[in-house]
Amino acid sequence: MTEHGKIDLLIEARWVVPVEPHAVVLEHHAVAVTAGRIVDVLPIAAARARYAARETCRLDEHVLMPGLINAHTHNPMTLMRGIADDLPLMAWLTEHIWPAEARAMSAEFVRDGVELAIAEMLRGGTTCCNENYFFPDVQAGTYKRHGFRALVGLPIMEFPSAWARTRDEYFDKALQVHDEYRGDPLVGTSFAPHAPYTVSNESFERVRMLSDQLDIPVHIHVHETAQEIEDSRREHGVRPMTRLQGLGIVNDHLIAVHMTQLDEAEIRLCAEAGVSVVHCPESNLKLASGFCPTEELRRAGVNIALGTDGCASNNDLDMFGEMRTAALLAKGVARDASAYDAAFALRTATLNAAKTLGWGERIGSIEPGKSADLTAVRLDALETQPVFNVISQLVYACGRHQVSDVWIAGVPKLVAGILVDMDVPALRARAREWGERLRSQG
Amino acid sequence: MTEHGKIDLLIEARWVVPVEPHAVVLEHHAVAVTAGRIVDVLPIAAARARYAARETCRLDEHVLMPGLINAHTHNPMTLMRGIADDLPLMAWLTEHIWPAEARAMSAEFVRDGVELAIAEMLRGGTTCCNENYFFPDVQAGTYKRHGFRALVGLPIMEFPSAWARTRDEYFDKALQVHDEYRGDPLVGTSFAPHAPYTVSNESFERVRMLSDQLDIPVHIHVHETAQEIEDSRREHGVRPMTRLQGLGIVNDHLIAVHMTQLDEAEIRLCAEAGVSVVHCPESNLKLASGFCPTEELRRAGVNIALGTDGCASNNDLDMFGEMRTAALLAKGVARDASAYDAAFALRTATLNAAKTLGWGERIGSIEPGKSADLTAVRLDALETQPVFNVISQLVYACGRHQVSDVWIAGVPKLVAGILVDMDVPALRARAREWGERLRSQG
Repeated sequence: MTEHGKIDLLIEARWVVPVEPHAVVLEHHAVAVTAGRIVDVLPIAAARARYAARETCRLDEHVLMPGLINAHTHNPMTLMRGIADDLPLMAWLTEHIWPAEARAMSAEFVRDGVELAIAEMLRGGTTCCNENYFFPDVQAGTYKRHGFRALVGLPIMEFPSAWARTRDEYFDKALQVHDEYRGDPLVGTSFAPHAPYTVSNESFERVRMLSDQLDIPVHIHVHETAQEIEDSRREHGVRPMTRLQGLGIVNDHLIAVHMTQLDEAEIRLCAEAGVSVVHCPESNLKLASGFCPTEELRRAGVNIALGTDGCASNNDLDMFGEMRTAALLAKGVARDASAYDAAFALRTATLNAAKTLGWGERIGSIEPGKSADLTAVRLDALETQPVFNVISQLVYACGRHQVSDVWIAGVPKLVAGILVDMDVPALRARAREWGERLRSQG
Repeated sequence: MTEHGKIDLLIEARWVVPVEPHAVVLEHHAVAVTAGRIVDVLPIAAARARYAARETCRLDEHVLMPGLINAHTHNPMTLMRGIADDLPLMAWLTEHIWPAEARAMSAEFVRDGVELAIAEMLRGGTTCCNENYFFPDVQAGTYKRHGFRALVGLPIMEFPSAWARTRDEYFDKALQVHDEYRGDPLVGTSFAPHAPYTVSNESFERVRMLSDQLDIPVHIHVHETAQEIEDSRREHGVRPMTRLQGLGIVNDHLIAVHMTQLDEAEIRLCAEAGVSVVHCPESNLKLASGFCPTEELRRAGVNIALGTDGCASNNDLDMFGEMRTAALLAKGVARDASAYDAAFALRTATLNAAKTLGWGERIGSIEPGKSADLTAVRLDALETQPVFNVISQLVYACGRHQVSDVWIAGVPKLVAGILVDMDVPALRARAREWGERLRSQG
């Protein structure tokens, strides 16, 4: 708060769901924002008395909540949405996705895919993503240009791509991108060694050393399928998590994505080491990869975040849909209707995801001092009537099209359902062009 | 077609997905409608040459498909959306749902709930439902008044309710409602003995005899949970399906809802007897009831349809979401990414559902002679770009808010997203009143 209570923005909402404290719904509350940060959360009447806001936004039928955080995605693949569905994993990868990627992969593809994804994410209430793809320099530049918050993975793998040819080149380019965005308020970097089966021990050791020195997360696909476990046993004599542990990778920098195959000792290890697990239920179902034991992980105290994965295996970036799928699926898998309750689902898509990215102090909840990354959702649609429980309604009944307003660091990005600074017809036209190009080469 | 090619309506669409033939997408096709029926499906240019339409509807960015059919729902419970979530089944039923129903149950509750549900269904592209609740007379009257197609279940159970006090009264009132709607073009009836554990052998025998005589379906919750199987073994010495078989209920009139517990012999029995299974994946997940073995049923040749169940265990009537959940979940459960593919998902929500209701000759596909129950979906949203495969897009990426136009028997019910003859603010206000009433009594 500045002197005399002058602030930039006062958002008055029918309901505020701050996420922290947990499972709380504040009625008729306001959020005061100045210089991109939340400065206060208080009843509307008190807010009007205390603050002189340069701008006031009234949300009479809305829930105001933290912007959603997609904790695992490959956003350039938005341009491949639906290119190959209903196929077994290996046929999907080797006959469709990899050949299409090999043809399309370029800075231009990555830029256009990320732009389409940003529009989709904003329209769906997502304000931050944990990105994992080639050309992290182009991704980072695109997120920054659009004022979108992202942790950009710096890819590391043992085979050549359009991004880098050798191991050394992957590392050199990774460090260049990291250096360029050091201290950036919106865009950060992580190491993203693709998976245990595509990255050597030597590379993991370099990742471990550098992630310690630079204090950035390590974002890996791990224990995604039973096949991966078997292959690791055959090649390395141990399960992937055991191998990673031996390489020093299993620590509180680790963002372990998928984790559908876990024994009790591994769950305990994750809890003790402070690993964050990113659950991607729709992708795991669509590719028949297995079920992440979210209830056991939660009980063990492991930080669980939620991600959509890329649009080729989902096929959207809809975090409302993902919360719902996660909450429903966990109940079926755990045989317990109280598993992954609505408030927990919302937490995995906000504060837990922020912690996963190393940004738990910066975003993920509506608390004074945090960045004003906010999402407003209209609850007056017939499809969300009547309202008995606001958080249930968000998770079990709401569609992402009910998102009306989105701010990132206090900057409005979506106003009454309209993207502030993106050209929708141009985005649509470019997506269609990519569709034609990918189809004609198919 | 009338003489000289005069027809009521020509709908020209970017894509037509007729469902029959299976998995086909017709580009730039038109559907000719007259007197409420489909008379032709042909390329737009040919349609313009052949027909003089009183009205033409151009859908340049849309898929035209059969109206969706929700094969199991309790629509008055839409007023209880989100009243109690994340609870174990018995606590949910005995501490929340049944007490709330006991307080609210009335003709007025049923009428208002059905009206809210009709609005939600139309906005989501659903044109027909298989209803199962108290006061079927009120339901039937409400559906008919709104021009909505429904098969209304005639409840049979052994305990008294606000609808009927004794077994004889349940049967008497059932037959009265059946008689009133005999031959109605929109509203039909089925017997709806609640479940094996709430209905006696004697009642099942009467249902069997009457359903044979009247040639109407029998709609039952069956094999919903493992507990139900155990209880039946203890009480009757056999599993519920075996008991129902002994009572003559297992035949091609049977609409068996849920079926999460099935052995191989039971799957074979369903195939041989011509039973239709209604899969309610979101409800089964939310209540942790178990997983319906859809892939085994499909391979055995059993007719599978899709339903949302009531809004207290879902919490919506969104058949797009349900198709998506069914398609994703089946892959995880069968450990096969090719299970419940997109075209099959659409079929379970249209033609298979029509067959389930005994209306396979009347609705469920876009074929000459069938009723013009049609749904148009915009695919130009950024969230459904690019379009590689139209059916994949409908199932895996589309949201129900992309539904633009809906016709039932050729009558427009939703036009460019607007309900033609329903008062949305009044519906919202009434839902809120019920919310207050149910909450204050809670």
